[in-house]
Amino acid sequence: MRFELTILGCGSALPANGRNPSSQILRTDKEMVMIDCGEGTQTRMRRYGLKMQSIDIICISHMHGDHYLGLPGLLSSSNLLGRKKEMTIIGPPGIQEMLEMHCRHAGMRFAFPIHYVQTGAKGGDIEMQTKSLRIQGFPLDHKIATTGFRFTEKPRPRRLDPSALERYEVPLKVRGAIARGEDYIRDDGKRIPNETLSSAPRAPRSYAYCSDTAYLESVVEQVHACDALYHECTFMESEKERAERTRHSTAKQAAAIAKEAKVGRLLMGHYSARYDDLRPLLDEARSVFAESHLSEEGMSIDFHRM
Amino acid sequence: MRFELTILGCGSALPANGRNPSSQILRTDKEMVMIDCGEGTQTRMRRYGLKMQSIDIICISHMHGDHYLGLPGLLSSSNLLGRKKEMTIIGPPGIQEMLEMHCRHAGMRFAFPIHYVQTGAKGGDIEMQTKSLRIQGFPLDHKIATTGFRFTEKPRPRRLDPSALERYEVPLKVRGAIARGEDYIRDDGKRIPNETLSSAPRAPRSYAYCSDTAYLESVVEQVHACDALYHECTFMESEKERAERTRHSTAKQAAAIAKEAKVGRLLMGHYSARYDDLRPLLDEARSVFAESHLSEEGMSIDFHRM
Repeated sequence: MRFELTILGCGSALPANGRNPSSQILRTDKEMVMIDCGEGTQTRMRRYGLKMQSIDIICISHMHGDHYLGLPGLLSSSNLLGRKKEMTIIGPPGIQEMLEMHCRHAGMRFAFPIHYVQTGAKGGDIEMQTKSLRIQGFPLDHKIATTGFRFTEKPRPRRLDPSALERYEVPLKVRGAIARGEDYIRDDGKRIPNETLSSAPRAPRSYAYCSDTAYLESVVEQVHACDALYHECTFMESEKERAERTRHSTAKQAAAIAKEAKVGRLLMGHYSARYDDLRPLLDEARSVFAESHLSEEGMSIDFHRM
Repeated sequence: MRFELTILGCGSALPANGRNPSSQILRTDKEMVMIDCGEGTQTRMRRYGLKMQSIDIICISHMHGDHYLGLPGLLSSSNLLGRKKEMTIIGPPGIQEMLEMHCRHAGMRFAFPIHYVQTGAKGGDIEMQTKSLRIQGFPLDHKIATTGFRFTEKPRPRRLDPSALERYEVPLKVRGAIARGEDYIRDDGKRIPNETLSSAPRAPRSYAYCSDTAYLESVVEQVHACDALYHECTFMESEKERAERTRHSTAKQAAAIAKEAKVGRLLMGHYSARYDDLRPLLDEARSVFAESHLSEEGMSIDFHRM
C-alpha cells in the first residue's frame, strides 16, 4: 500500500540557489503520476532513480515555463527509449498545441498514444478516476489559467478477520461481498453483522498541490482535511505587495490556507530566487500553522507512515 | 584578444552518463555567442559562471529537442532578470514560431527586441558580419534541415612598429591608414613601404560547428583550415549502419572530415548514450586524425593559445 510523494524541484521561475523548477512524482502501488514538469526534470528523475517509462499520468498546472518546459524533452526521451504505453496528460489546451508543434518541427511523432484531458479555460474543471486515484482539478488565482490538483486514494476493501471467517464458517465465494461491507446471512437465516467479520480499511490518503496562486479562499474547501498540502509560498509577508501583483502567495498566506483547511501538514515550495536561506519562510509559516515544512529537492514522503 | 570556446553540453538526445545536451559559448572581446541550447543550458551557464545577460547572438542548428529546448526558459529568465539588450537569434523559422507560442500561452512578452535571422529551408544559407565575427551557415545532412556554422574573427589591423614610426617621423593622423596596410608617403614625395612600419596581424582564428550530420563531403570545403572543428560523432564504426540510418556520423567519419579539411584540431562530441567510456571513440578518431580530442562539459579552449 503505497502513496508516496517525491519532490523533483521546488524553486520558482529562476533557477538559483541550486533549486530547480517545479516537478513532483506521486506513486501508488498501481500508478506513477507526475505533477508539473519544469526544465531539466528528466535529468532529475534519473538522479533519483525514477524511471520515466513508469509515468502513467502527467498533470500540468499552467503554461508558465517553469512548470512545463521539461515536458517535450521528457516525452521525446521516452519515445527514444521505446515507450509504447499510453500517457495521460492533464493540463491546459496549450500543452497539446505545444507538443504537436514540437513534433512537427522535429519531424517526429510519438510512438505511444497520448490521451489529453484538458483543464478548463479558467483552470480546474476536471475530475477523473484512474486505477488507484481520484484526481480533481480546481481553479487557482494566477496571472493565467492555473489548476490546483487533489489526489485521493480510491477506497480500499474492508479488512477481513481470518479467525472470525473461520469461526462462522464463511464460504470463500461470499468473502468479496463481505470485503465490500455486506453482512453474511447463513443458510439457517441467521445474519452475521459485517463488523463481526471485518474491520474498517485504512482511510484513503489525500494530497493537494496548489502552485501557482495568490491567496484564494475557495482553496480551503478544495483541499479540506487532506493529509498534505503543497502550497506555493514564493514570497514572505515583507514582499506581500509583490506577491499580490504577481499573483503569488506569501508563506503566511499558505499557512493560513493550511490552517483553515485543517490539513495534516503543509509542504512549502516555489521559493523566490531571492531567498537563499529558507528558514525565515519556515518561521513565518509556523507562526500560523505549526505543521509547516519546507519542501526540498529529492525529499520523499510516504503518506502511510506520516 | 579573445576567441574562447566553452562546452556546456556534448551529449546526444538522451541525458545519460552525466552528459547534457548540446550547447556551447564562443566569446570574443566584444561578443558572446551561444551555439545550440539544449534543455538545462541556463543552469549550466550558472554553474560555469557565464552570464546569460551577456549573450548577444544565439545560433540554433536545427529543431531536434536536444539542440533547442533550453531556449524558451533561457530567454524567459533573461526577461525576468530585466534584459533590455537586443538578442539576435539565427536558426530555422520554427524557433520564432515556438517562442511566439510560448509567450502567447504564458501571457507574456519579452521586454527586449529579438532579431531573427532565418536559416534556409534546407539549412545554411546565411552569412553575416557582427561586431567581431563573420558567421557563415552551411547545410548539413540530417533528418531535418540542419545548419553548420563557421565563426571567423574579423581581420585585425596590422601591428605598428613604434620605433619605426618614430624613426620615419610618421604623424599621428596617418597611423590608421598604415594599420590598414597603406604605405607612408612623406612630404618630400618619398614612399616608405608599409612593411617597414608595421607587421602582419595575427591570423584571424576560425571555429566550425557541425552537429548533427551524416558524413557529408561538402563540409570539407566549408570548414577548410579552421583552427578547430566541432564535429558530431554520435557512434563508432561498429554502428555505421545506425549512423547512416539516423543521419549521424561515426568517430572515424568525423576524423576523415577533419583530416581532409586540414583543420587544426577536431573536437568530438554528441556522443550516444550507449558509450559510457569514450576512450574507444577517441582511439578510432585518432587512427585517422591525430589531433582529435574529446569535448567535455565545462572545457574551455582559448584559440589564441592553442
